[in-house]
Amino acid sequence: MQQPGTTTTLSKEMQDCVDACMSCHSICEESMSSCLQMGGQAQMQIMRALMDCTEITRICADMMMRRSPMAAEMCRMCARACDMCAEACMGMPEDPLMMRCAESCRRCAEMCRTMAGAAA
Amino acid sequence: MQQPGTTTTLSKEMQDCVDACMSCHSICEESMSSCLQMGGQAQMQIMRALMDCTEITRICADMMMRRSPMAAEMCRMCARACDMCAEACMGMPEDPLMMRCAESCRRCAEMCRTMAGAAA
Amino acid sequence: MQQPGTTTTLSKEMQDCVDACMSCHSICEESMSSCLQMGGQAQMQIMRALMDCTEITRICADMMMRRSPMAAEMCRMCARACDMCAEACMGMPEDPLMMRCAESCRRCAEMCRTMAGAAA
Amino acid sequence: MQQPGTTTTLSKEMQDCVDACMSCHSICEESMSSCLQMGGQAQMQIMRALMDCTEITRICADMMMRRSPMAAEMCRMCARACDMCAEACMGMPEDPLMMRCAESCRRCAEMCRTMAGAAA
Repeated sequence: MQQPGTTTTLSKEMQDCVDACMSCHSICEESMSSCLQMGGQAQMQIMRALMDCTEITRICADMMMRRSPMAAEMCRMCARACDMCAEACMGMPEDPLMMRCAESCRRCAEMCRTMAGAAA
Repeated sequence: MQQPGTTTTLSKEMQDCVDACMSCHSICEESMSSCLQMGGQAQMQIMRALMDCTEITRICADMMMRRSPMAAEMCRMCARACDMCAEACMGMPEDPLMMRCAESCRRCAEMCRTMAGAAA
Repeated sequence: MQQPGTTTTLSKEMQDCVDACMSCHSICEESMSSCLQMGGQAQMQIMRALMDCTEITRICADMMMRRSPMAAEMCRMCARACDMCAEACMGMPEDPLMMRCAESCRRCAEMCRTMAGAAA
Repeated sequence: MQQPGTTTTLSKEMQDCVDACMSCHSICEESMSSCLQMGGQAQMQIMRALMDCTEITRICADMMMRRSPMAAEMCRMCARACDMCAEACMGMPEDPLMMRCAESCRRCAEMCRTMAGAAA
Protein backbone atom coordinates (compact mmCIF):
# COMPACT_ATOMS: atom_id res chain seq x y z
CA MET A 1 0.00 0.00 0.00
CA GLN A 2 1.01 3.51 -0.88
CA GLN A 3 2.22 5.70 1.96
CA PRO A 4 -0.41 8.32 2.78
CA GLY A 5 0.05 11.52 0.84
CA THR A 6 3.29 10.56 -0.90
CA THR A 7 2.22 10.94 -4.49
CA THR A 8 -0.02 13.91 -4.27
CA THR A 9 2.29 16.71 -5.31
CA LEU A 10 1.77 17.91 -8.85
CA SER A 11 4.80 19.11 -10.79
CA LYS A 12 5.26 22.88 -10.86
CA GLU A 13 4.37 22.93 -14.57
CA MET A 14 1.18 20.94 -14.08
CA GLN A 15 0.13 23.01 -11.07
CA ASP A 16 0.61 26.18 -13.14
CA CYS A 17 -1.49 24.67 -15.90
CA VAL A 18 -4.23 23.72 -13.40
CA ASP A 19 -4.18 27.29 -12.08
CA ALA A 20 -4.42 28.70 -15.60
CA CYS A 21 -7.39 26.43 -16.35
CA MET A 22 -9.18 27.42 -13.16
CA SER A 23 -8.57 31.14 -13.73
CA CYS A 24 -9.85 30.80 -17.25
CA HIS A 25 -12.89 28.87 -16.02
CA SER A 26 -13.65 31.63 -13.51
CA ILE A 27 -13.43 34.48 -15.95
CA CYS A 28 -15.53 32.55 -18.47
CA GLU A 29 -18.27 32.20 -15.84
CA GLU A 30 -18.13 35.95 -15.20
CA SER A 31 -18.17 36.68 -18.91
CA MET A 32 -21.25 34.51 -19.40
CA SER A 33 -23.03 36.47 -16.71
CA SER A 34 -22.04 39.73 -18.37
CA CYS A 35 -23.14 38.51 -21.83
CA LEU A 36 -26.53 37.52 -20.45
CA GLN A 37 -26.96 40.96 -18.90
CA MET A 38 -26.07 42.75 -22.12
CA GLY A 39 -28.09 40.35 -24.22
CA GLY A 40 -27.25 41.31 -27.82
CA GLN A 41 -26.75 39.05 -30.83
CA ALA A 42 -22.97 39.39 -30.64
CA GLN A 43 -23.07 38.28 -27.02
CA MET A 44 -25.02 35.16 -27.94
CA GLN A 45 -22.34 34.04 -30.35
CA ILE A 46 -19.74 34.52 -27.63
CA MET A 47 -21.91 32.56 -25.17
CA ARG A 48 -21.49 29.37 -27.19
CA ALA A 49 -17.71 29.65 -27.08
CA LEU A 50 -17.79 30.54 -23.39
CA MET A 51 -19.98 27.55 -22.52
CA ASP A 52 -17.57 25.13 -24.17
CA CYS A 53 -14.51 26.84 -22.74
CA THR A 54 -15.77 27.01 -19.17
CA GLU A 55 -16.71 23.33 -19.10
CA ILE A 56 -13.55 22.09 -20.79
CA THR A 57 -11.15 24.17 -18.68
CA ARG A 58 -12.89 22.87 -15.58
CA ILE A 59 -12.78 19.20 -16.59
CA CYS A 60 -9.18 19.64 -17.76
CA ALA A 61 -8.08 21.02 -14.38
CA ASP A 62 -9.94 18.22 -12.59
CA MET A 63 -8.34 15.53 -14.75
CA MET A 64 -4.85 16.90 -14.09
CA MET A 65 -5.52 17.11 -10.36
CA ARG A 66 -6.64 13.51 -10.23
CA ARG A 67 -3.84 12.30 -12.54
CA SER A 68 -6.13 10.98 -15.25
CA PRO A 69 -4.30 9.05 -17.99
CA MET A 70 -6.36 11.16 -20.44
CA ALA A 71 -5.23 14.51 -19.00
CA ALA A 72 -2.73 15.23 -21.78
CA GLU A 73 -5.34 14.58 -24.43
CA MET A 74 -7.81 16.82 -22.61
CA CYS A 75 -5.15 19.56 -22.44
CA ARG A 76 -4.88 19.45 -26.22
CA MET A 77 -8.63 19.82 -26.57
CA CYS A 78 -8.72 22.52 -23.91
CA ALA A 79 -6.13 24.54 -25.85
CA ARG A 80 -8.42 24.53 -28.88
CA ALA A 81 -11.51 25.47 -26.82
CA CYS A 82 -9.52 28.38 -25.35
CA ASP A 83 -8.34 29.48 -28.80
CA MET A 84 -11.91 29.58 -30.07
CA CYS A 85 -13.12 31.43 -27.00
CA ALA A 86 -10.31 33.99 -27.19
CA GLU A 87 -11.18 34.64 -30.81
CA ALA A 88 -14.87 35.07 -29.95
CA CYS A 89 -14.07 37.47 -27.11
CA MET A 90 -11.82 39.52 -29.41
CA GLY A 91 -14.97 40.38 -31.35
CA MET A 92 -15.88 42.80 -28.53
CA PRO A 93 -12.71 44.90 -28.14
CA GLU A 94 -14.65 47.66 -26.39
CA ASP A 95 -15.52 45.43 -23.43
CA PRO A 96 -12.72 45.24 -20.83
CA LEU A 97 -14.07 42.02 -19.32
CA MET A 98 -14.04 40.28 -22.72
CA MET A 99 -10.49 41.50 -23.28
CA ARG A 100 -9.41 40.04 -19.94
CA CYS A 101 -11.23 36.85 -20.80
CA ALA A 102 -9.46 36.60 -24.16
CA GLU A 103 -6.13 37.12 -22.44
CA SER A 104 -6.85 34.43 -19.85
CA CYS A 105 -7.94 32.03 -22.62
CA ARG A 106 -4.75 32.64 -24.59
CA ARG A 107 -2.56 32.06 -21.57
CA CYS A 108 -4.45 28.88 -20.72
CA ALA A 109 -4.21 27.66 -24.33
CA GLU A 110 -0.46 28.16 -24.31
CA MET A 111 0.04 26.32 -21.02
CA CYS A 112 -2.24 23.46 -22.05
CA ARG A 113 -0.36 23.02 -25.31
CA THR A 114 2.93 22.86 -23.42
CA MET A 115 1.45 20.38 -20.97
CA ALA A 116 0.03 18.22 -23.78
CA GLY A 117 3.41 18.15 -25.46
CA ALA A 118 5.28 17.40 -22.25
CA ALA A 119 3.01 14.50 -21.42
CA ALA A 120 2.86 13.00 -24.92
CA MET B 1 -28.66 47.95 -22.56
CA GLN B 2 -26.18 47.42 -19.78
CA GLN B 3 -22.81 49.12 -20.15
CA PRO B 4 -20.16 46.53 -20.95
CA GLY B 5 -18.49 45.13 -17.86
CA THR B 6 -20.26 47.33 -15.33
CA THR B 7 -21.83 44.69 -13.16
CA THR B 8 -19.15 42.09 -13.15
CA THR B 9 -17.40 42.78 -9.89
CA LEU B 10 -18.26 40.40 -7.09
CA SER B 11 -18.28 41.76 -3.54
CA LYS B 12 -15.13 41.05 -1.54
CA GLU B 13 -17.08 38.59 0.66
CA MET B 14 -18.49 36.71 -2.30
CA GLN B 15 -15.13 36.58 -4.07
CA ASP B 16 -13.56 35.15 -0.89
CA CYS B 17 -16.30 32.55 -0.74
CA VAL B 18 -15.76 31.65 -4.41
CA ASP B 19 -12.05 31.27 -3.71
CA ALA B 20 -12.72 29.07 -0.68
CA CYS B 21 -15.03 26.86 -2.76
CA MET B 22 -12.48 26.52 -5.55
CA SER B 23 -9.65 25.73 -3.11
CA CYS B 24 -11.82 23.14 -1.45
CA HIS B 25 -12.77 21.67 -4.82
CA SER B 26 -9.10 21.38 -5.77
CA ILE B 27 -7.99 19.66 -2.62
CA CYS B 28 -10.97 17.28 -2.83
CA GLU B 29 -9.85 16.26 -6.32
CA GLU B 30 -6.33 15.60 -4.98
CA SER B 31 -7.70 13.70 -2.03
CA MET B 32 -9.79 11.48 -4.32
CA SER B 33 -6.69 10.65 -6.30
CA SER B 34 -4.83 9.80 -3.11
CA CYS B 35 -7.67 7.64 -1.79
CA LEU B 36 -7.76 5.68 -5.04
CA GLN B 37 -4.02 5.07 -4.80
CA MET B 38 -4.25 3.84 -1.22
CA GLY B 39 -7.38 1.84 -1.90
CA GLY B 40 -8.50 0.64 1.55
CA GLN B 41 -12.00 0.35 2.95
CA ALA B 42 -11.65 3.55 4.99
CA GLN B 43 -10.66 5.42 1.85
CA MET B 44 -13.78 4.23 0.05
CA GLN B 45 -16.01 5.74 2.69
CA ILE B 46 -14.16 9.03 2.35
CA MET B 47 -14.49 8.86 -1.43
CA ARG B 48 -18.28 9.20 -1.23
CA ALA B 49 -18.00 12.36 0.84
CA LEU B 50 -15.27 13.70 -1.45
CA MET B 51 -17.33 13.09 -4.58
CA ASP B 52 -20.27 15.09 -3.21
CA CYS B 53 -18.07 17.84 -1.84
CA THR B 54 -16.01 18.32 -4.98
CA GLU B 55 -19.09 18.62 -7.18
CA ILE B 56 -21.05 20.87 -4.86
CA THR B 57 -18.17 23.27 -4.14
CA ARG B 58 -17.61 23.57 -7.87
CA ILE B 59 -21.24 24.25 -8.77
CA CYS B 60 -21.52 26.63 -5.79
CA ALA B 61 -18.55 28.70 -6.99
CA ASP B 62 -19.94 28.74 -10.53
CA MET B 63 -23.37 29.87 -9.35
CA MET B 64 -21.90 32.74 -7.35
CA MET B 65 -19.71 33.79 -10.25
CA ARG B 66 -22.66 33.91 -12.60
CA ARG B 67 -24.95 35.56 -10.01
CA SER B 68 -27.50 32.79 -9.90
CA PRO B 69 -30.61 33.62 -7.84
CA MET B 70 -30.12 30.21 -6.23
CA ALA B 71 -26.54 30.87 -5.13
CA ALA B 72 -27.42 31.51 -1.48
CA GLU B 73 -29.36 28.28 -1.28
CA MET B 74 -26.49 26.38 -2.88
CA CYS B 75 -24.11 27.95 -0.34
CA ARG B 76 -26.21 26.47 2.47
CA MET B 77 -26.06 23.05 0.87
CA CYS B 78 -22.37 23.43 0.15
CA ALA B 79 -21.71 24.16 3.83
CA ARG B 80 -23.32 20.84 4.76
CA ALA B 81 -21.42 18.90 2.08
CA CYS B 82 -18.19 20.45 3.40
CA ASP B 83 -19.10 19.55 7.00
CA MET B 84 -19.67 15.93 6.04
CA CYS B 85 -16.47 15.78 4.04
CA ALA B 86 -14.43 17.35 6.85
CA GLU B 87 -15.80 14.78 9.26
CA ALA B 88 -14.96 11.93 6.87
CA CYS B 89 -11.41 13.22 6.35
CA MET B 90 -10.91 13.50 10.13
CA GLY B 91 -11.20 9.71 10.21
CA MET B 92 -7.66 9.55 8.83
CA PRO B 93 -5.68 11.81 11.20
CA GLU B 94 -2.39 10.18 10.17
CA ASP B 95 -2.72 11.41 6.57
CA PRO B 96 -1.49 15.00 6.13
CA LEU B 97 -3.41 15.45 2.88
CA MET B 98 -6.67 14.43 4.53
CA MET B 99 -5.97 16.85 7.36
CA ARG B 100 -5.42 19.68 4.89
CA CYS B 101 -8.57 18.65 3.09
CA ALA B 102 -10.59 18.71 6.32
CA GLU B 103 -9.24 22.15 7.11
CA SER B 104 -10.14 23.46 3.66
CA CYS B 105 -13.63 21.97 3.96
CA ARG B 106 -14.18 23.61 7.34
CA ARG B 107 -13.06 26.98 6.09
CA CYS B 108 -15.30 26.67 3.03
CA ALA B 109 -18.27 25.60 5.19
CA GLU B 110 -17.86 28.63 7.41
CA MET B 111 -17.66 31.07 4.50
CA CYS B 112 -20.60 29.47 2.71
CA ARG B 113 -22.73 29.71 5.84
CA THR B 114 -21.87 33.40 6.16
CA MET B 115 -22.65 33.96 2.50
CA ALA B 116 -25.97 32.09 2.77
CA GLY B 117 -26.96 34.22 5.73
CA ALA B 118 -25.86 37.46 4.11
CA ALA B 119 -27.85 36.75 0.97
CA ALA B 120 -30.95 35.42 2.72
CA MET C 1 -17.02 -7.59 1.35
CA GLN C 2 -20.18 -6.83 -0.54
CA GLN C 3 -21.20 -9.36 -3.19
CA PRO C 4 -20.59 -7.92 -6.64
CA GLY C 5 -23.57 -6.08 -8.02
CA THR C 6 -25.96 -6.84 -5.17
CA THR C 7 -26.85 -3.34 -4.11
CA THR C 8 -26.98 -1.61 -7.42
CA THR C 9 -30.69 -1.63 -8.15
CA LEU C 10 -32.43 1.65 -7.54
CA SER C 11 -36.03 1.59 -6.34
CA LYS C 12 -38.63 2.11 -9.06
CA GLU C 13 -39.47 5.55 -7.61
CA MET C 14 -35.87 6.66 -7.53
CA GLN C 15 -35.21 5.36 -11.05
CA ASP C 16 -38.25 7.29 -12.30
CA CYS C 17 -36.93 10.41 -10.58
CA VAL C 18 -33.48 9.90 -12.14
CA ASP C 19 -35.14 9.54 -15.55
CA ALA C 20 -37.18 12.71 -14.99
CA CYS C 21 -34.03 14.63 -14.03
CA MET C 22 -32.14 13.40 -17.07
CA SER C 23 -35.01 14.20 -19.43
CA CYS C 24 -35.28 17.65 -17.92
CA HIS C 25 -31.51 18.13 -18.22
CA SER C 26 -31.65 17.16 -21.90
CA ILE C 27 -34.46 19.50 -22.84
CA CYS C 28 -32.80 22.34 -20.89
CA GLU C 29 -29.66 21.85 -22.99
CA GLU C 30 -31.74 22.01 -26.16
CA SER C 31 -33.60 25.05 -24.90
CA MET C 32 -30.33 26.86 -24.17
CA SER C 33 -29.20 26.20 -27.71
CA SER C 34 -32.49 27.55 -29.04
CA CYS C 35 -32.34 30.65 -26.83
CA LEU C 36 -28.82 31.41 -28.05
CA GLN C 37 -29.97 31.13 -31.66
CA MET C 38 -32.92 33.45 -31.10
CA GLY C 39 -30.87 35.83 -29.01
CA GLY C 40 -33.45 38.31 -27.68
CA GLN C 41 -33.64 39.92 -24.25
CA ALA C 42 -36.42 37.56 -23.12
CA GLN C 43 -34.28 34.59 -24.06
CA MET C 44 -31.42 35.88 -21.94
CA GLN C 45 -33.56 35.91 -18.84
CA ILE C 46 -34.61 32.35 -19.56
CA MET C 47 -30.98 31.35 -20.08
CA ARG C 48 -30.13 32.04 -16.45
CA ALA C 49 -32.90 29.76 -15.23
CA LEU C 50 -31.93 27.12 -17.80
CA MET C 51 -28.27 27.18 -16.75
CA ASP C 52 -29.16 26.53 -13.11
CA CYS C 53 -31.76 23.92 -13.95
CA THR C 54 -29.60 21.94 -16.35
CA GLU C 55 -26.72 21.73 -13.87
CA ILE C 56 -28.84 20.91 -10.85
CA THR C 57 -30.94 18.23 -12.58
CA ARG C 58 -27.74 16.62 -13.76
CA ILE C 59 -26.02 16.62 -10.39
CA CYS C 60 -29.26 15.46 -8.73
CA ALA C 61 -29.55 12.46 -11.05
CA ASP C 62 -25.90 11.61 -10.48
CA MET C 63 -26.24 11.81 -6.71
CA MET C 64 -29.24 9.48 -6.72
CA MET C 65 -27.46 7.03 -9.00
CA ARG C 66 -24.45 6.89 -6.71
CA ARG C 67 -26.58 6.78 -3.53
CA SER C 68 -25.26 9.99 -2.06
CA PRO C 69 -26.45 10.68 1.50
CA MET C 70 -27.23 14.19 0.28
CA ALA C 71 -29.46 13.04 -2.59
CA ALA C 72 -32.73 13.88 -0.82
CA GLU C 73 -31.54 17.37 -0.04
CA MET C 74 -30.43 17.86 -3.62
CA CYS C 75 -33.86 16.67 -4.78
CA ARG C 76 -35.47 19.45 -2.76
CA MET C 77 -33.21 22.02 -4.32
CA CYS C 78 -33.71 20.52 -7.77
CA ALA C 79 -37.47 20.90 -7.38
CA ARG C 80 -37.05 24.61 -6.78
CA ALA C 81 -34.65 25.05 -9.71
CA CYS C 82 -37.19 23.26 -11.91
CA ASP C 83 -40.03 25.46 -10.62
CA MET C 84 -38.08 28.61 -11.47
CA CYS C 85 -37.13 27.30 -14.88
CA ALA C 86 -40.73 26.28 -15.69
CA GLU C 87 -41.91 29.74 -14.75
CA ALA C 88 -39.23 31.36 -16.94
CA CYS C 89 -40.13 29.14 -19.91
CA MET C 90 -43.82 29.98 -19.49
CA GLY C 91 -42.87 33.54 -20.44
CA MET C 92 -42.61 32.36 -24.04
CA PRO C 93 -45.92 30.57 -24.66
CA GLU C 94 -45.52 30.90 -28.43
CA ASP C 95 -42.42 28.70 -28.47
CA PRO C 96 -43.27 24.96 -28.52
CA LEU C 97 -39.83 23.97 -27.28
CA MET C 98 -40.13 26.25 -24.26
CA MET C 99 -43.56 24.80 -23.53
CA ARG C 100 -42.15 21.28 -23.64
CA CYS C 101 -39.29 22.41 -21.43
CA ALA C 102 -41.69 23.92 -18.88
CA GLU C 103 -43.68 20.70 -18.84
CA SER C 104 -40.55 18.60 -18.31
CA CYS C 105 -39.43 20.92 -15.50
CA ARG C 106 -42.80 20.66 -13.77
CA ARG C 107 -42.82 16.90 -13.95
CA CYS C 108 -39.24 16.74 -12.63
CA ALA C 109 -40.10 19.16 -9.80
CA GLU C 110 -43.02 17.02 -8.74
CA MET C 111 -41.00 13.80 -8.74
CA CYS C 112 -38.09 15.40 -6.90
CA ARG C 113 -40.42 16.72 -4.22
CA THR C 114 -41.89 13.26 -3.74
CA MET C 115 -38.41 11.75 -3.60
CA ALA C 116 -37.21 14.36 -1.08
CA GLY C 117 -40.19 13.63 1.12
CA ALA C 118 -39.81 9.86 0.82
CA ALA C 119 -36.17 9.98 1.81
CA ALA C 120 -36.50 12.54 4.58
CA MET D 1 -34.37 36.40 -35.91
CA GLN D 2 -34.69 32.66 -35.91
CA GLN D 3 -38.21 31.24 -35.76
CA PRO D 4 -38.84 29.73 -32.34
CA GLY D 5 -37.95 26.08 -32.16
CA THR D 6 -37.06 25.61 -35.82
CA THR D 7 -33.55 24.34 -35.47
CA THR D 8 -33.81 22.24 -32.41
CA THR D 9 -34.25 18.78 -33.86
CA LEU D 10 -31.16 16.65 -33.71
CA SER D 11 -30.57 14.16 -36.52
CA LYS D 12 -31.58 10.59 -35.73
CA GLU D 13 -27.89 9.57 -35.65
CA MET D 14 -26.92 12.34 -33.27
CA GLN D 15 -29.90 11.68 -31.00
CA ASP D 16 -28.92 7.99 -30.85
CA CYS D 17 -25.38 9.00 -29.97
CA VAL D 18 -26.65 11.36 -27.24
CA ASP D 19 -28.76 8.51 -25.85
CA ALA D 20 -25.79 6.14 -25.89
CA CYS D 21 -23.66 8.70 -24.03
CA MET D 22 -26.33 9.28 -21.41
CA SER D 23 -26.89 5.55 -20.89
CA CYS D 24 -23.18 5.03 -20.55
CA HIS D 25 -22.95 7.94 -18.11
CA SER D 26 -25.73 6.43 -15.98
CA ILE D 27 -24.24 2.98 -15.77
CA CYS D 28 -20.82 4.45 -14.98
CA GLU D 29 -22.35 6.31 -12.01
CA GLU D 30 -23.92 3.06 -10.80
CA SER D 31 -20.66 1.20 -11.30
CA MET D 32 -18.76 3.79 -9.27
CA SER D 33 -21.20 3.32 -6.43
CA SER D 34 -20.76 -0.45 -6.61
CA CYS D 35 -16.96 -0.19 -6.71
CA LEU D 36 -16.98 2.01 -3.62
CA GLN D 37 -19.14 -0.51 -1.79
CA MET D 38 -16.87 -3.41 -2.69
CA GLY D 39 -13.75 -1.39 -2.03
CA GLY D 40 -10.94 -3.66 -3.23
CA GLN D 41 -7.75 -2.73 -5.03
CA ALA D 42 -9.10 -3.89 -8.39
CA GLN D 43 -12.13 -1.67 -7.92
CA MET D 44 -9.93 1.35 -7.31
CA GLN D 45 -8.22 0.92 -10.67
CA ILE D 46 -11.61 0.73 -12.35
CA MET D 47 -12.77 3.84 -10.49
CA ARG D 48 -10.22 6.00 -12.32
CA ALA D 49 -11.51 4.85 -15.69
CA LEU D 50 -15.12 5.26 -14.56
CA MET D 51 -14.53 8.80 -13.33
CA ASP D 52 -13.12 9.89 -16.68
CA CYS D 53 -15.76 8.03 -18.66
CA THR D 54 -18.73 9.34 -16.69
CA GLU D 55 -17.60 12.96 -17.02
CA ILE D 56 -16.66 12.76 -20.69
CA THR D 57 -19.83 10.95 -21.79
CA ARG D 58 -21.86 13.59 -19.95
CA ILE D 59 -20.06 16.57 -21.47
CA CYS D 60 -20.13 14.90 -24.90
CA ALA D 61 -23.93 14.46 -24.75
CA ASP D 62 -24.35 18.05 -23.58
CA MET D 63 -22.15 19.41 -26.38
CA MET D 64 -24.12 17.51 -29.02
CA MET D 65 -27.42 18.69 -27.55
CA ARG D 66 -26.33 22.30 -27.65
CA ARG D 67 -24.69 21.96 -31.10
CA SER D 68 -21.21 22.86 -29.98
CA PRO D 69 -18.74 23.28 -32.86
CA MET D 70 -16.41 21.06 -30.81
CA ALA D 71 -18.89 18.21 -30.46
CA ALA D 72 -17.24 16.01 -33.10
CA GLU D 73 -13.87 16.40 -31.44
CA MET D 74 -15.38 15.55 -28.05
CA CYS D 75 -17.01 12.45 -29.61
CA ARG D 76 -13.56 11.25 -30.66
CA MET D 77 -12.22 11.74 -27.16
CA CYS D 78 -15.32 10.15 -25.65
CA ALA D 79 -14.79 7.05 -27.77
CA ARG D 80 -11.32 6.64 -26.28
CA ALA D 81 -12.54 7.21 -22.71
CA CYS D 82 -15.20 4.54 -23.31
CA ASP D 83 -12.64 2.11 -24.75
CA MET D 84 -10.44 2.52 -21.68
CA CYS D 85 -13.38 2.12 -19.33
CA ALA D 86 -14.67 -0.99 -21.14
CA GLU D 87 -11.22 -2.54 -20.86
CA ALA D 88 -11.04 -1.73 -17.14
CA CYS D 89 -14.50 -3.22 -16.52
CA MET D 90 -13.54 -6.39 -18.39
CA GLY D 91 -11.05 -7.02 -15.61
CA MET D 92 -13.98 -8.08 -13.40
CA PRO D 93 -15.79 -10.67 -15.55
CA GLU D 94 -17.52 -12.14 -12.51
CA ASP D 95 -19.44 -8.90 -11.83
CA PRO D 96 -22.62 -8.60 -13.94
CA LEU D 97 -22.81 -4.83 -13.44
CA MET D 98 -19.26 -4.36 -14.72
CA MET D 99 -20.09 -6.53 -17.72
CA ARG D 100 -23.13 -4.39 -18.51
CA CYS D 101 -21.00 -1.29 -18.04
CA ALA D 102 -18.37 -2.60 -20.44
CA GLU D 103 -21.05 -3.35 -22.99
CA SER D 104 -22.56 0.13 -22.66
CA CYS D 105 -19.10 1.70 -23.01
CA ARG D 106 -18.37 -0.28 -26.16
CA ARG D 107 -21.65 0.67 -27.75
CA CYS D 108 -21.09 4.33 -26.86
CA ALA D 109 -17.53 4.21 -28.23
CA GLU D 110 -18.77 2.84 -31.53
CA MET D 111 -21.51 5.46 -31.90
CA CYS D 112 -19.17 8.29 -30.94
CA ARG D 113 -16.60 7.17 -33.48
CA THR D 114 -19.27 7.12 -36.19
CA MET D 115 -20.50 10.55 -35.12
CA ALA D 116 -16.94 11.96 -35.07
CA GLY D 117 -16.36 10.64 -38.58
CA ALA D 118 -19.70 11.89 -39.88
CA ALA D 119 -19.09 15.38 -38.57
CA ALA D 120 -15.44 15.64 -39.59
